[in-house]
Amino acid sequence: MKNIQHLLEQMTLQEKIDQLTQLAAPFFKGAEDAGAITGPMMNMEVEDDNIRNAGSVLGASGARNIKSIQEQHLAENRLSIPLLFMSDVVHGYKTIFPIPLAIGCSWNLELAEDSARIAALESAVSGIHVTFAPMVDLVRDPRWGRVTETTGEDPLLNSLFAKAQVRGFQGEDVANDLERVAACVKHFAGYGAVEGGRDYNTVNMSDRQLHEIYLPAYKAALDQGCKMVMSSFNVIDGIPATANQTLMRDVLREQWQFDGVVISDWGAVKELIAHGVAADKGEAGLKAVLAGTDIEMMTDCYSSYLKEYVENSMLSEAIIDEAVLRILKLKEELGLFENPYRGADEQLEKEIILSDQHRASARELAVESTVLLKNEQVLPLDCTQKVALIGPYADSGNILGQWSWLGSKDDSITMLEAMKGKAENEVFFAEGCRIEDEIENGFEDAKQKAAQADVVIVAVGEDPLMSGEAGSRTNIKLPEPQLSLITELKKLGKPIVTVLFNGRPLDLHGVIENSDAVVEAWFPGTEGGQAIADLIYGDENFSGKLSMSIPHSAGQIPVYYNHYSTGRPKGAPDAQERYVSQYLDSPNGPLFPFGYGLSYTSFEYGDVQLSTDVLTKDAELTITVSVRNSGELTGKEVVQLYVQDVIGEVVRPVKELKGFQKVEFLPGEEKEITFVLSEEDFRYYHSDMTYKSDPGEFIVYAGRDSLTDMGTSFVLK
Amino acid sequence: MKNIQHLLEQMTLQEKIDQLTQLAAPFFKGAEDAGAITGPMMNMEVEDDNIRNAGSVLGASGARNIKSIQEQHLAENRLSIPLLFMSDVVHGYKTIFPIPLAIGCSWNLELAEDSARIAALESAVSGIHVTFAPMVDLVRDPRWGRVTETTGEDPLLNSLFAKAQVRGFQGEDVANDLERVAACVKHFAGYGAVEGGRDYNTVNMSDRQLHEIYLPAYKAALDQGCKMVMSSFNVIDGIPATANQTLMRDVLREQWQFDGVVISDWGAVKELIAHGVAADKGEAGLKAVLAGTDIEMMTDCYSSYLKEYVENSMLSEAIIDEAVLRILKLKEELGLFENPYRGADEQLEKEIILSDQHRASARELAVESTVLLKNEQVLPLDCTQKVALIGPYADSGNILGQWSWLGSKDDSITMLEAMKGKAENEVFFAEGCRIEDEIENGFEDAKQKAAQADVVIVAVGEDPLMSGEAGSRTNIKLPEPQLSLITELKKLGKPIVTVLFNGRPLDLHGVIENSDAVVEAWFPGTEGGQAIADLIYGDENFSGKLSMSIPHSAGQIPVYYNHYSTGRPKGAPDAQERYVSQYLDSPNGPLFPFGYGLSYTSFEYGDVQLSTDVLTKDAELTITVSVRNSGELTGKEVVQLYVQDVIGEVVRPVKELKGFQKVEFLPGEEKEITFVLSEEDFRYYHSDMTYKSDPGEFIVYAGRDSLTDMGTSFVLK
Repeated sequence: MKNIQHLLEQMTLQEKIDQLTQLAAPFFKGAEDAGAITGPMMNMEVEDDNIRNAGSVLGASGARNIKSIQEQHLAENRLSIPLLFMSDVVHGYKTIFPIPLAIGCSWNLELAEDSARIAALESAVSGIHVTFAPMVDLVRDPRWGRVTETTGEDPLLNSLFAKAQVRGFQGEDVANDLERVAACVKHFAGYGAVEGGRDYNTVNMSDRQLHEIYLPAYKAALDQGCKMVMSSFNVIDGIPATANQTLMRDVLREQWQFDGVVISDWGAVKELIAHGVAADKGEAGLKAVLAGTDIEMMTDCYSSYLKEYVENSMLSEAIIDEAVLRILKLKEELGLFENPYRGADEQLEKEIILSDQHRASARELAVESTVLLKNEQVLPLDCTQKVALIGPYADSGNILGQWSWLGSKDDSITMLEAMKGKAENEVFFAEGCRIEDEIENGFEDAKQKAAQADVVIVAVGEDPLMSGEAGSRTNIKLPEPQLSLITELKKLGKPIVTVLFNGRPLDLHGVIENSDAVVEAWFPGTEGGQAIADLIYGDENFSGKLSMSIPHSAGQIPVYYNHYSTGRPKGAPDAQERYVSQYLDSPNGPLFPFGYGLSYTSFEYGDVQLSTDVLTKDAELTITVSVRNSGELTGKEVVQLYVQDVIGEVVRPVKELKGFQKVEFLPGEEKEITFVLSEEDFRYYHSDMTYKSDPGEFIVYAGRDSLTDMGTSFVLK
Repeated sequence: MKNIQHLLEQMTLQEKIDQLTQLAAPFFKGAEDAGAITGPMMNMEVEDDNIRNAGSVLGASGARNIKSIQEQHLAENRLSIPLLFMSDVVHGYKTIFPIPLAIGCSWNLELAEDSARIAALESAVSGIHVTFAPMVDLVRDPRWGRVTETTGEDPLLNSLFAKAQVRGFQGEDVANDLERVAACVKHFAGYGAVEGGRDYNTVNMSDRQLHEIYLPAYKAALDQGCKMVMSSFNVIDGIPATANQTLMRDVLREQWQFDGVVISDWGAVKELIAHGVAADKGEAGLKAVLAGTDIEMMTDCYSSYLKEYVENSMLSEAIIDEAVLRILKLKEELGLFENPYRGADEQLEKEIILSDQHRASARELAVESTVLLKNEQVLPLDCTQKVALIGPYADSGNILGQWSWLGSKDDSITMLEAMKGKAENEVFFAEGCRIEDEIENGFEDAKQKAAQADVVIVAVGEDPLMSGEAGSRTNIKLPEPQLSLITELKKLGKPIVTVLFNGRPLDLHGVIENSDAVVEAWFPGTEGGQAIADLIYGDENFSGKLSMSIPHSAGQIPVYYNHYSTGRPKGAPDAQERYVSQYLDSPNGPLFPFGYGLSYTSFEYGDVQLSTDVLTKDAELTITVSVRNSGELTGKEVVQLYVQDVIGEVVRPVKELKGFQKVEFLPGEEKEITFVLSEEDFRYYHSDMTYKSDPGEFIVYAGRDSLTDMGTSFVLK
């Protein structure tokens, strides 16, 4: 064990400050891309000394590369303090899993954990110490491109996935487990609520909503032992997260007692100037460090200015020391002082990365992440059917989604390749059009191919760059040539199966009504094509359920299941015709609700049974519901449990997810599914921000999705 | 002077509680529509005693009618306490002025005040005592139908219009001025921020945003002496306004020291049940009265249940007394104990209502409220031009907008009538289509008429019922047949002038690009057709400026000028191409910005001159800008003054309106426009909610709209 306090005492003030700086790999002499300083990196004012003293490295990968950087660094760093290597490994390293939004739709925490374990393993042998994941931002606005990176719209679902991912990345004991990496939960906080769904935009909400809806998933990750936190780009209540003392000191450090490392997002410290809360880089650095941002990523506000503030007594050196100690402590915990190369292993890299086992896991998760939205008796296909596979995604490997920088589309299986492996007859293929552009004679070619087939599969979607970071859109429909392609193909009168590849819930007008079946594949990752072929040929059954509502249109945003009731709910017994809360031209609810997804089999639910209709504060409530597979195929059902607190001191959501179980059923099989809740599951933030429950009536719903009306009530005493 | 304390002491508990009840006119024996109890009124559980004891009447009008109700009531009420008569007179009684959103676009406080004076006068002689106006809800979402009722998106502009309307309704001394009515500012608070623009929906925002952006206009109305406040339908931070003690007790009563009457909105007390904060009508009544809601409108939670709460000591009678006293005090202030009929006068009704003077005022305000959005050298028309006037609004008097229940479209001048009065050649007319439906051969007829003309005027828009209360829409484009009508007419190759009648900012795709000129007439009121004819023939000049941004599309909402900067502003010198706050498929800003509007003449601005570049806390800053009419016609310009606080402790808006002047210029005339600001104009709510300014740099902009970049800076010491 290194005596980090002793080490701190040996450090000069500038060395301490530079320890707080994170630089991209090209700044380091030992890097394979050393000196390739381009784009926004060129704005960094760093001297050789700053680099020599730097504390961590952004975005390096590869065992040989990272070892070389570390080796050179240790040779040049006065106190031989090893570097921390941090990278964005979000849904896989080279074996790319479905995008997180899709993983959310699996409702399978074990598979999610395993995907994180595999991502950690591939990262660890490649020399990475920390991944900037899980991203747990709760979202209600599909215009925002980064919905692709989150597990969805529900506080509980996001919290459970946050924990699963942290378990997967870090294992039981990340300190001693060289096959794991430290996790960094992001983006703290509320980034998913950017106004207008425009990335980096203002966030505004009440403190109560922040605590009740947006904060739980970050807290859950930390409860699971997550080592780091990344602050978000957005303002919270008018103050950027990066400089937000209420958020970072009061909530994160004091209330939650988090003592790990907080890192800014890329360039976010300097962005305090553009936000208009700092006049210059010095003030930006001062505000960020005072708020408790330990590491400044990719700007030099700390390294160029904090020394002067300390020397002028405008900043206590104790603040710097506190930040440095947190970083040194993480290095010590990861064993870097003893083994600065940690798990980096070129031989293991070759053996492990993209192994058959990893691919099999990716395929399994892609199967469970895919959501069947519509099926008018056209799926599953029979291997003997003649199939036309049409569309820009029909033979595309570009199905990895954003934040898969080390993944290669050349490693991914396309739908065409996978389907050819299953079909007993020819698979007629035509691209038809590109994502946003027509192809000369593309429609004619497509129609000609389709005319020869029994069934037409249309593989369409958004380009991965249309979502992800900075991928915000006002129009969330499928791009025009693809909509026309579907319309044209529909005219042939053959069954149409549309498979969607996209990073956000789309406005599906033009798709739903023109398709006999619709498969939401999201960006399914390396094994995506294979998984989809498994599903559409019935070798696997669908079990994905939406973790984010699909709205009717952009004009209806936000749409989410756990909204409040209004005083004039539509459809109430005494409701007037006009003077209710509604749109004149659209339903209030989504096209497809949270929790929705079809299967090749069918499930019948019995009544919800409660162990008691009066729950006391120290007792447990057991909820039992009988579920039967009434179809002829094996399938998994996500049995969902929702609760409504009928009367609150503060308005309560019409429903809140309180539990779920994903259970496999053989044909005809019936199981009793039980959930256990107690008083603490019904607590919420009251008007004075006390967190407690109210006595009174609650309704417990179980069912196949968030629209379930199978409920029964009990009274909490 | 009545001794109202003494009166209170004579009242039984039930009489007091019933005094808090407001019933619609049909409940009263003396009413001309007595007994016509239909729709939601039928849910009221009121006995004859409750009616006899009731304190106020909703929605009655007409001197004879109101006198009759009052007379009968005084005969039956044990203590002869007169009724208060309250009605929604929002933008005119029978002489209907433009909708408030249009009035906001006039930027003319004097005309707005005069419109309120006339509305008050026509109401007062008709027997009304209180109008439920001004509505001052700040709005940023054109999906919400009630944007039609507000003056727009800016705190200062709304505050100044709030004051102007209160002055107009109440005059200097409403107590003794029988030609005025008491004003009731609504809806307290934040109703304009309903989520998704869906009426009655949840509102969520930070306390800081509420105080800084949404509350000022309500406060301004009260500072002007507004007698009453109506609470809003929405929740604020999870608690319905009607039962929100923080809002109603802490802010309204304590901080603002408002001691007047607070009334609920229609049925809102009982709606606490549907909101889920009250289990039954009794609890709803209890919560509302505890929050300080004095009058319960059109439900019986007070009259049926409060007595029991008082008798069981669950509610202090002092709370009831406090509410009753406020109501009695208002009656006493309005002189109703001495003259219960106040200004009601059947003779004056005949003389005054819809008088030429009133019509002239309505016409003048309609002229100044209309906004010229585009003009490619086609307007003004020459009287000798052959004109085709096409569209569902070409010969429609249905141009009064919502909340004009006493106005009659038969009294309004249509565009066709007005234009025929000016044109020297035939005006070819065709309806073309209806608002949302085609007419058989409508397009053919329209094209045939248009073919004969030199210029084609297309009068299109939304039906009044497509906006207003409960008039929320997800699609804010012009309805389809009208878009096609414009497209078809455009093919004729003639100049197209589109005149828009609508209650909200629309997505103008399909209109702007197909029109040579676009006139935003909103719903212009009784004299609207005349005013538009005045403008398009050049008898009047355009001077309206948008008081609400017009977005590119619904997918871009919210769009408003006084937004925060982000940390990654688009277009910054060091901005990256992708990683900035932007939409991939749309500009960030609106199609037409706040403050925008064209004129037939042109105005040139000189540089912004400041009296000092260093402002001390106790000094004044004089801003001078020279404006010259560089065109050939007389015109009015709205000279707008904006300020940016460059660095704040909390992020400051990129611009804030700090003043404006609407000034008339003769051709060639040049004037120095001066504004005076001081330190207190730069205060805002800091992180700890203290309201103060920061020393530092400010930029002062003057110009023709909110996009002006004519700025110069000073330093506040």
